[in-house]
Amino acid sequence: MSEERQSRDDYPHFLALQTRWNDNDVYGHVNNVEYYGYFDTVINEWLINQGGLDIEGDGEAIGVCAESHCSYREALSFPDKLDAGLRVGKLGTSSVRYEIGIFRSGEHEAGASGWFVHVFVDPASREPRPIPEGIRSSLERLVVEGEPE
Amino acid sequence: MSEERQSRDDYPHFLALQTRWNDNDVYGHVNNVEYYGYFDTVINEWLINQGGLDIEGDGEAIGVCAESHCSYREALSFPDKLDAGLRVGKLGTSSVRYEIGIFRSGEHEAGASGWFVHVFVDPASREPRPIPEGIRSSLERLVVEGEPE
Amino acid sequence: MSEERQSRDDYPHFLALQTRWNDNDVYGHVNNVEYYGYFDTVINEWLINQGGLDIEGDGEAIGVCAESHCSYREALSFPDKLDAGLRVGKLGTSSVRYEIGIFRSGEHEAGASGWFVHVFVDPASREPRPIPEGIRSSLERLVVEGEPE
Amino acid sequence: MSEERQSRDDYPHFLALQTRWNDNDVYGHVNNVEYYGYFDTVINEWLINQGGLDIEGDGEAIGVCAESHCSYREALSFPDKLDAGLRVGKLGTSSVRYEIGIFRSGEHEAGASGWFVHVFVDPASREPRPIPEGIRSSLERLVVEGEPE
Repeated sequence: MSEERQSRDDYPHFLALQTRWNDNDVYGHVNNVEYYGYFDTVINEWLINQGGLDIEGDGEAIGVCAESHCSYREALSFPDKLDAGLRVGKLGTSSVRYEIGIFRSGEHEAGASGWFVHVFVDPASREPRPIPEGIRSSLERLVVEGEPE
Repeated sequence: MSEERQSRDDYPHFLALQTRWNDNDVYGHVNNVEYYGYFDTVINEWLINQGGLDIEGDGEAIGVCAESHCSYREALSFPDKLDAGLRVGKLGTSSVRYEIGIFRSGEHEAGASGWFVHVFVDPASREPRPIPEGIRSSLERLVVEGEPE
Repeated sequence: MSEERQSRDDYPHFLALQTRWNDNDVYGHVNNVEYYGYFDTVINEWLINQGGLDIEGDGEAIGVCAESHCSYREALSFPDKLDAGLRVGKLGTSSVRYEIGIFRSGEHEAGASGWFVHVFVDPASREPRPIPEGIRSSLERLVVEGEPE
Repeated sequence: MSEERQSRDDYPHFLALQTRWNDNDVYGHVNNVEYYGYFDTVINEWLINQGGLDIEGDGEAIGVCAESHCSYREALSFPDKLDAGLRVGKLGTSSVRYEIGIFRSGEHEAGASGWFVHVFVDPASREPRPIPEGIRSSLERLVVEGEPE
């Protein structure tokens, strides 16, 4: 929990997300698990719509999650509207580390932030493969210079 | 499956929903279960923001689901953006039947439609209670005349 | 809600299910949506392990949901252990109607019951196909004579 | 990803979990997000059944998630049966670090492992509170000596 609190200025891309009724758990706030679903959503929406990822996986490499992490700062609740911010912290040959912040609509500081590592693999053999070119060029647009979270 | 296919003209209220990565199942389309999550979301967003429902349940009646149903016509898929349409088919003393249509953004006909019955109950005893007045007046604005689905 | 309450005697097959933390919603009981996830699970576990369904969908027909329904009688809650009961109500050429009951462990009457229609389709074209032979013979073992729910 | 791969010997407690149909994502394996749902489930099942946690939150402190992490080693898939292993890595005054391993039934090494920090707070004010005594004594039974993951 040594990470600094993230703000909207730290992310070059955002996706708007509507919370759902059952995102809230019995304590009345968005369950910790759901944040990882927001991570997956902002990442893959980018890969598909900007990078040309083919999730049918017929041919090119697909990204599988090797590791993920989240720090929770402030409780969010349905029916909040949210924005998921996305940047790329490290772009390797066959792996990428995304960094994500989850913001309540209208708030400047993140309610939660985390990171997520995709390793690109052959869809059949699951052996690592270089990140496909269309995806790589889309991810380069999300690389943020400076200290990693 | 005798219901007619619903169009946007059949609903007085809409809530925009972003599909999420894991809404899709292994067959590459939104899983049938997720539609009920969309139902719950459009209904409760209305009850909270328009009807003043207190989901902490400290006092007034809350709505619990007695019955639900969905018919699926056309496959939707992440990363589609959706609109959930909502109307009230029957407004009783302590129960309400909602009718919901799920539309891909920009499409006129529903990909799926269904209904959902809430019975309002005391949050502690779970005995039926009249629909609270603020909620009732918000639901009256969603009543659509004509044949029920 | 005219259906009779179902008991364990009404189902020839059961799958044990552990409720999960976030099955509960803010009201402290299993959310109505989750029951449909239990339906999908008991059905597909049978199709895969008893009927030889190939969910990679390389070749034979797969089942897609055309319609589903659930009636809720008694609230269940995490950390309850559950049993999902399964029978076949109607077995057609390319479609099947499953009937499902969800029981708290040790209880004789269902907390909720419902039905679910699969249409078998070609995985690529999504055109209806006859139910594959291995699946059909497994489903015949679940057909229960008598009045449909 | 520097953690060593965990085995069943590393955990003093297990909870059996049945995978569900929609745990699988479009790539045919359990989605990374679902593992955190398994974490929440094994942890809270213990807190409720062994520690006397009252999730209605009427009075005593409740645990809220401050941070979580997961490393994925081997793909699991519906309809696998799983075991979630649980130990306590660090037991503080008002916080606890759980360490969890997710195993396919019959396998000795974890398919995924991670950790999860609960801070105990007053259910109303959300200010930190000492871990309630019943919960603390149940957690002491899960403390494992040696190197943290």
